Amino acid sequence: MQSQTAVNDALVNTIKTLSIDAIQRANSGHPGMPMGMADVAAVLWADFLCVDPSEPGFADRDRFVLSGGHGSMLLYSLLHLSGFPLPLSEIKRFRQLGSMTPGHPEVGVTPGVETTTGPLGQGIANAVGMAMAEARLAARFNRPGFHVVDHWTYGLCGDGDLEEGISHEAASLAGHLGLGKLVFLYDDNNITIEGNTSLAFSEDIPKRFESYGWHVQRCDGHDRDAVHAAIAAARAETARPSLICCKTHIGHGSPNKHDSEKAHGSPLGVDEVRLTKENIGWPPDAHFLVPTEAVAAFDNLRARGALKRSHHEERMARYAEIHPELAAELERVLAGELPEGLEGVVAGLMAELGEKTLATRASSGKVINGLAPHVTELWGGSADLAESTKTLVDGGGSFSRTQRTGRNLHFGIREHGMAGIMNGMALHGGVIPYGATFLTFTDYMRGSMRLAALMKQRVVYVLTHDSIFLGEDGPTHQAVEHAMAMRTIPGMHVLRPADSRETAAAWLAALERADGPTCLLLTRQNLPPIPGSVDAIAGVRQGGYVVQDCEGAPELLLLGTGSEVHVCVRVAETLSAEGVAVRVVSLPSFERFEAQPQAYRDAVLPPSCGARLSVEAGRTVGWERFVGPLGESVGVDRFGESAPDKVLAEELGLTVADVTARARALLAAQPARKAALRALLDG
Amino acid sequence: MQSQTAVNDALVNTIKTLSIDAIQRANSGHPGMPMGMADVAAVLWADFLCVDPSEPGFADRDRFVLSGGHGSMLLYSLLHLSGFPLPLSEIKRFRQLGSMTPGHPEVGVTPGVETTTGPLGQGIANAVGMAMAEARLAARFNRPGFHVVDHWTYGLCGDGDLEEGISHEAASLAGHLGLGKLVFLYDDNNITIEGNTSLAFSEDIPKRFESYGWHVQRCDGHDRDAVHAAIAAARAETARPSLICCKTHIGHGSPNKHDSEKAHGSPLGVDEVRLTKENIGWPPDAHFLVPTEAVAAFDNLRARGALKRSHHEERMARYAEIHPELAAELERVLAGELPEGLEGVVAGLMAELGEKTLATRASSGKVINGLAPHVTELWGGSADLAESTKTLVDGGGSFSRTQRTGRNLHFGIREHGMAGIMNGMALHGGVIPYGATFLTFTDYMRGSMRLAALMKQRVVYVLTHDSIFLGEDGPTHQAVEHAMAMRTIPGMHVLRPADSRETAAAWLAALERADGPTCLLLTRQNLPPIPGSVDAIAGVRQGGYVVQDCEGAPELLLLGTGSEVHVCVRVAETLSAEGVAVRVVSLPSFERFEAQPQAYRDAVLPPSCGARLSVEAGRTVGWERFVGPLGESVGVDRFGESAPDKVLAEELGLTVADVTARARALLAAQPARKAALRALLDG
Repeated sequence: MQSQTAVNDALVNTIKTLSIDAIQRANSGHPGMPMGMADVAAVLWADFLCVDPSEPGFADRDRFVLSGGHGSMLLYSLLHLSGFPLPLSEIKRFRQLGSMTPGHPEVGVTPGVETTTGPLGQGIANAVGMAMAEARLAARFNRPGFHVVDHWTYGLCGDGDLEEGISHEAASLAGHLGLGKLVFLYDDNNITIEGNTSLAFSEDIPKRFESYGWHVQRCDGHDRDAVHAAIAAARAETARPSLICCKTHIGHGSPNKHDSEKAHGSPLGVDEVRLTKENIGWPPDAHFLVPTEAVAAFDNLRARGALKRSHHEERMARYAEIHPELAAELERVLAGELPEGLEGVVAGLMAELGEKTLATRASSGKVINGLAPHVTELWGGSADLAESTKTLVDGGGSFSRTQRTGRNLHFGIREHGMAGIMNGMALHGGVIPYGATFLTFTDYMRGSMRLAALMKQRVVYVLTHDSIFLGEDGPTHQAVEHAMAMRTIPGMHVLRPADSRETAAAWLAALERADGPTCLLLTRQNLPPIPGSVDAIAGVRQGGYVVQDCEGAPELLLLGTGSEVHVCVRVAETLSAEGVAVRVVSLPSFERFEAQPQAYRDAVLPPSCGARLSVEAGRTVGWERFVGPLGESVGVDRFGESAPDKVLAEELGLTVADVTARARALLAAQPARKAALRALLDG
Repeated sequence: MQSQTAVNDALVNTIKTLSIDAIQRANSGHPGMPMGMADVAAVLWADFLCVDPSEPGFADRDRFVLSGGHGSMLLYSLLHLSGFPLPLSEIKRFRQLGSMTPGHPEVGVTPGVETTTGPLGQGIANAVGMAMAEARLAARFNRPGFHVVDHWTYGLCGDGDLEEGISHEAASLAGHLGLGKLVFLYDDNNITIEGNTSLAFSEDIPKRFESYGWHVQRCDGHDRDAVHAAIAAARAETARPSLICCKTHIGHGSPNKHDSEKAHGSPLGVDEVRLTKENIGWPPDAHFLVPTEAVAAFDNLRARGALKRSHHEERMARYAEIHPELAAELERVLAGELPEGLEGVVAGLMAELGEKTLATRASSGKVINGLAPHVTELWGGSADLAESTKTLVDGGGSFSRTQRTGRNLHFGIREHGMAGIMNGMALHGGVIPYGATFLTFTDYMRGSMRLAALMKQRVVYVLTHDSIFLGEDGPTHQAVEHAMAMRTIPGMHVLRPADSRETAAAWLAALERADGPTCLLLTRQNLPPIPGSVDAIAGVRQGGYVVQDCEGAPELLLLGTGSEVHVCVRVAETLSAEGVAVRVVSLPSFERFEAQPQAYRDAVLPPSCGARLSVEAGRTVGWERFVGPLGESVGVDRFGESAPDKVLAEELGLTVADVTARARALLAAQPARKAALRALLDG
């Protein structure tokens, strides 16, 4: 075969030496993968990847995902050499506070980094999500002569990625969906952190991916022409995603750490850096050396990207003339802007659903269907629980190998893969993904949910069966700790609406939140409307508001979320009839409420009222900040049991009668509690 | 082939009708799988499974795992019909509060249930762990002529199990390890909750399992002789685990819901129950009918189990004569009793390590090695992070296909699989499993960790790099919310020791806890000894204790965990020199401390001292209960950053100087805070 690659030794060696120099300078990092995959990555970038370094956000660019994020210096070297705005001075600040070159790639920090990777396997799911988004947008917006969405998703992965379950889940779905424009290059080096992969990993990887329906090739990852040919063949196969197993040597070029786990996760050491440079014919005392030939090897890349962008711009201009509505819609969804008038749509849904007795999961399903025609970028499904989580868009069709316009996603029973794929969709842009399962199964997907929060991505989790009130399925399925555990993730919004109106408002709040993920916690059981939720749009946006009030200053505050707001309302009715001044506060979101000005929070929860009782069918820890030193929390601080929901309410002390008794006891105990506090103050 | 199975139609139809009757009566449950897998399960139990229903805990019994726990009525029917102590009256109480027949099988609730299943995929990992435990115990204890440990692990799984990533992880490791005594029967029915598996699942399952190194067969799951022959062939293959893909019809026997997702998760309905009975030649109006022939079909099972048990008892008696030390050791580990004198061993380790400056992960590594010769049942490893998590037993060898006595486990980069496998090991008994990864990656394995807590299993999680102080790897690897999120799981113990002595004591506490899991949170960075930790054994057992005190009543309480106890100690030194009466409390475990009598807690945290500052490099929510209304918490309520640890301490306000300033400010603010509280009390 003739050499077809633009890659020269200077480029590969510059990638290697920039990487080992930066890692040595930081005295921290992972040189093994940048050295082992320098050939492969250089070929992919120089010969195929279509990006415009002068415009990193160009919408129709190819996506590149470095799933093994520990190899970050490989990516930073590629970005620097290809001309992205990542100066050498930042490479020299690798792993330092506030640099553009953190230890693992972080989207938003470095131009050209498409996703935050490091936790293994996530990048594979992200890439699958990106390829799915590309496929849907292409189907929605391309017209004869106007391929306005047409790009590839490439990724690099290692053994660690492929051992993680999330990679199996995502790869299986990618094969099922026939994502032909997804190409992964696998760094097959037989080394993991503990040593040879033979310690724990002896899968036949090609066979495994064939079982998922992938197109699989093998090649020598240091034979650049072979890599070039394999990528070309992968692109020629358009009905299946492609895996190219690249046989490589970790730490390639290092005379003493080549093929050793010692190259994986520690700097080579000053001496070995020098020996490596000598070994590859590099000036041994030069640091951060970038020869002209290395930069020149990426001339093709720059020319290719600039050409594609100029063609794209011309094409878009003509598209806007011929298909003005489509063009405006494409522009809108790519910009991440919601359609105008959305609040009015939601207000309409609230009016329609507001007086109905429905489980909030059912309300959510109706809201999804009400939003779907307007928010065309809203796109989701469930981990095989569509019927239970009520996430199907009626008549929307299923996204499949043959129907790329399908509105409904079938993730399979793959929660972690679902959440990782949703991240990739959101990162790609042009779609707002939602994904559903039971709240308790967030345990399966926290790894990806945390990354959604870290990456500030707009994804919506529809989490139904949100408490012990799911009943008979028992403790394995009953969420107890999950609402509070989810609230501990920085940047995660957890919304637990109390009725149909709050559910519609919660969906609006989730969509309006462009800079982070939102969990919607929804009931299995039916709930009547709460009279006081008519202003739910404002109330939910603010995270908490008064849904039922007394005359004058309250003597007792009842704070609830979701289904327990109803308990609070009924308790308040009883106590009000007895002459107690009771206020009921619905607190659908801690995060939103705590972001309000103190004056608003004090208006909702007057500091003068110390008798406060929170009611939420979950762990009570975390409520202290709202109930204060004179208050108490009703909740569930144990695992549930398999029984009908009404029986469980009695067993766990969550009936209206139980909570009424707790409230009365709390009021009765106020003098004693105040006395105890006074003693502390005087002590 | 000659019919070889003891199964008759009466048995299969009784399984089906008991299941649909119980589900109909509960008006809740999953009939599809019990009906579809009745033939397969009946053959396995009648012809192969070696258990003694009169002694469900017989140590050398075969293990049976129903991974798809929603098919619980299949298991309950089998248990009832084979003679386990599960009366028909309990079958009739399916899914009711306090019954022996909860919605999903729960270990400890029903004799003969080996593990709690429901969250999909877990049972496969559990079964792998059981088979690994059997292999290790057999290698440790069997001697020529004395196969005192010799049993099989069987499981049933469905599409849902096989879609979950944890099943991929566990199955891959099982293949790698060549677990020849593990046999899974796959309910290949093409139906999941949303409908046909073609919506999301088109893997070539046999090929996939072959790629993991499994022995794979296919058969008609309703041809009982074929099922019998396949299980026999699976048992004949001893070098590889076996998967038997059984082509079945979900809801088999139901005229209208056969082969439909409608049979999966809802009762058939009164009419369809009747039609089903008519269809299979059953009295249509009989309920919970158990014909004699159905019970008789399990005569073989009962005879086989009783025979094995009597042979086992004879064998053990002779074994105890010839190998008395081995016999005593086997009896001890199977009983779950720790060796005598363990506290003395730990005290010795504390003396040896106590004055050293070590990261607590390094202390933990030395403790593991110090315990290993005594606690021979301690058995563990890491998710490919042995070097970082310090979990290798020196000279212990690796558990592998060829070395079943190996002390060190290599789980691969499979955290979820690891945790699920550990559950299986603990459930099997005879071993105490530990497994390690970075604290942040508990996000990948919470599903299994929650089940360990629910099942009250003694497993130890070694979770290192427990805060932002891991430094340069950045926010993806820095635990922030994880300690608190882990504390929300009911029954989970989270121990965060502050130095080598506390680390040794934490290991002791974890081992002593026979009825639940423990997380050990350990630092990456070095820590000096804390002078006041000499009584760490008692202090850690109690969850919190005074490590540095003042004369007289304290004016200020500093509460810390792990590495932040050191910050507290240094702050206390500064303030004490200024004349402030400061007490420092180490709180390694919230759970243990809160289980102490009020008098002890008040002695450690005197109610009279309201000026309290907690310091923990993680989320502050959850500390309110300890710092009270006049106190404050120093922590990390945001994601970390990639930078050296000392730089991060400054950036995040966690230096000694920062905390000293916070403590001074807190003291200075006391009058104002008290005044505000007084106003509230008087308001």
